[in-house]
Amino acid sequence: MLVYADNAATTKLSEKSLDAMMPLLKEDYGNPSSLHTVGQKAKEYLEEARETVANLIGAKPREIYFTSGGSEADNQAIRTAAYLGAKKGKKHIISSKFEHHAVLHTLNALEKEGFTVTLLDVYSNGIVKPEDVENAITDETCLVTIMTANNEIGTIQPIAEIGKICKDKGVIFHTDAVQAVGHIPVNVNDMNVDMLSVSAHKFHGPKGIGFLYVKTGIPVRNLIEGGAQERGKRAGTENTAAIVGMAAAMKDAVENLDETAKKVSAMRDRLIDGLKGIERSRINGDLENRLPGTLNMCFEGIEGESLLLLLDARGICASSGSACTSGSLDPSHVLLSIGVPVEIAHGSLRLSISEYNTMEEMEHIVKSVPEVVSYLRSISPVWEKIMKENNN
Amino acid sequence: MLVYADNAATTKLSEKSLDAMMPLLKEDYGNPSSLHTVGQKAKEYLEEARETVANLIGAKPREIYFTSGGSEADNQAIRTAAYLGAKKGKKHIISSKFEHHAVLHTLNALEKEGFTVTLLDVYSNGIVKPEDVENAITDETCLVTIMTANNEIGTIQPIAEIGKICKDKGVIFHTDAVQAVGHIPVNVNDMNVDMLSVSAHKFHGPKGIGFLYVKTGIPVRNLIEGGAQERGKRAGTENTAAIVGMAAAMKDAVENLDETAKKVSAMRDRLIDGLKGIERSRINGDLENRLPGTLNMCFEGIEGESLLLLLDARGICASSGSACTSGSLDPSHVLLSIGVPVEIAHGSLRLSISEYNTMEEMEHIVKSVPEVVSYLRSISPVWEKIMKENNN
Repeated sequence: MLVYADNAATTKLSEKSLDAMMPLLKEDYGNPSSLHTVGQKAKEYLEEARETVANLIGAKPREIYFTSGGSEADNQAIRTAAYLGAKKGKKHIISSKFEHHAVLHTLNALEKEGFTVTLLDVYSNGIVKPEDVENAITDETCLVTIMTANNEIGTIQPIAEIGKICKDKGVIFHTDAVQAVGHIPVNVNDMNVDMLSVSAHKFHGPKGIGFLYVKTGIPVRNLIEGGAQERGKRAGTENTAAIVGMAAAMKDAVENLDETAKKVSAMRDRLIDGLKGIERSRINGDLENRLPGTLNMCFEGIEGESLLLLLDARGICASSGSACTSGSLDPSHVLLSIGVPVEIAHGSLRLSISEYNTMEEMEHIVKSVPEVVSYLRSISPVWEKIMKENNN
Repeated sequence: MLVYADNAATTKLSEKSLDAMMPLLKEDYGNPSSLHTVGQKAKEYLEEARETVANLIGAKPREIYFTSGGSEADNQAIRTAAYLGAKKGKKHIISSKFEHHAVLHTLNALEKEGFTVTLLDVYSNGIVKPEDVENAITDETCLVTIMTANNEIGTIQPIAEIGKICKDKGVIFHTDAVQAVGHIPVNVNDMNVDMLSVSAHKFHGPKGIGFLYVKTGIPVRNLIEGGAQERGKRAGTENTAAIVGMAAAMKDAVENLDETAKKVSAMRDRLIDGLKGIERSRINGDLENRLPGTLNMCFEGIEGESLLLLLDARGICASSGSACTSGSLDPSHVLLSIGVPVEIAHGSLRLSISEYNTMEEMEHIVKSVPEVVSYLRSISPVWEKIMKENNN
């Protein structure tokens, strides 16, 4: 049995998405900028996809800028607001400690350019407090960027409240909604956001495509200069097949959101029930405000990487946290941000479920994880030490 | 008959490329950064593709950075060299007047940041003189960026000679090889280049993917910050299917380069033969140093856009120049750079042929273009004026 439980890293392309892409990968290969029939056909696909994704988040088509994915969208959003602020002498940015690296590393780069960054606490429940945002805003603040849902622990942030605060204070608000879109309701108006980043491959769409929503009135800054595509704000021949595939996958995901969430959260809850009893384990992040499919746990006395490899040998594909930082020996910045001690953060496991999973697969996980954890502890000097200290 | 003669804008995805992509669009959907089996399988595909494209241009796999296309690669290359130069107080860049906008607009942006840019003449033949590069280099020069082949007129530049000059003077040399790779021999060693940009959809590969070659020793600067992909230099989950599709298309194109060039240039020569006799027409750019498939002509007294629309009505897909600037009313900066007068530059036609075209299609073009030109001139007040002046 192969159990793919790493849907926060990437998802299987849906048949609907692939079917939508095929005509563009075959006969409808035109460049949307070309004036002839083949080009204009591609342009029609492009603008229909733009309308689809815009409608799905309550935006206008002209507020959508297609990008190569979520990271590019985050980079472009942050630099747009930062340089817009700098023009008015406002060089202070507020974010949180457990953002994705596409946000944090862009902020690091801006710090070297003279910007000041405040990273808010996310507390033990993994949730930013709106009042912390309010208190952090100064006359110099040009941007607040807080993710909609965390990619490692799945906690959902009070985006609408934070957005309201930003709106009242006249500060641009961006949210990285890469883990949220297609999984929980996302509407730019209800959420009071000015900019929002999306990535297709997190909701069974293709890799290498995403978009940035930017509210009318905010002048977008180019990250990639060149041709006049995307109203002059993102150069490069449009990735039409992937854009159309993204629209199809997003439509499917959003239209079936409630049903999928019910099915997926039932599977996740089975995992919680089956794994929470493991001695000296913890579930990371708030249990209520959480993506339907994400569960993140820590097991004392073991290394996450060993856990993953042994689970993989049993056909279970999971991760210790973000795929983007796997291979790094540093413990997860997300787990550290919610107060997990370094030595425990090393023993983390993220299981992320999609509607393609089955309850039978959950049973396999529920059976395997305790066995593997027990085995690893049986050969772990760290666990032996913990046990000794416990007995004293 | 539908004749697609706009292959410089984009090409039809090859069956080989699509076949190579399909497993990744279906079962092998893993994230290459994931440590489990599904992820590592994706990683194997990724690194095999990297090795393939590296070998095809004489580079090492670790010198390849996958990007979302040629525009991103150009932007990243130029900013890498520019900021590296700035650190040493070198803020002068040399390029040419007829580069792609991905280069020219990035240079415009850098001028606003205090860089000085010298744009070299390309003369009536559309070819940069190496001695002009040599004469333009100063102690402040940090980068020379000259395209391998022009996207509108197809002229091939003396890259190896320019590269030699840059090497001798210790200046970084980048070339936008987007129109060249897969069409003429491209080898980073023979060409003496430090950085080279490639885009897959110009050689029957997928859209939305390309790469930047950067010679070992040059520290690459991120354009997109975030995860540790591409050795930390280009964040975002890798577009594995497109990367594999690019490698397959490039392998096919490069391995059949001579045969394809022979076939394609025979078709282009038929076009030249059949169209050069049109009264008051001109072929733009050198006839010898030219891509096999590209022909660019101007017809006095007509508007290029009307010509395109009437050709389109006859099933011929062509362009007036770059697809990236179509819709713009400005005449082509490329044609102006080679000394074509503004009023004549408006009447331009680019026909770009691939191995998917047939000689029968060429005959259709050769029959249609003169008829359409004649018709447009018969209703053109500009043409009437030219004829009157000619008779006086």
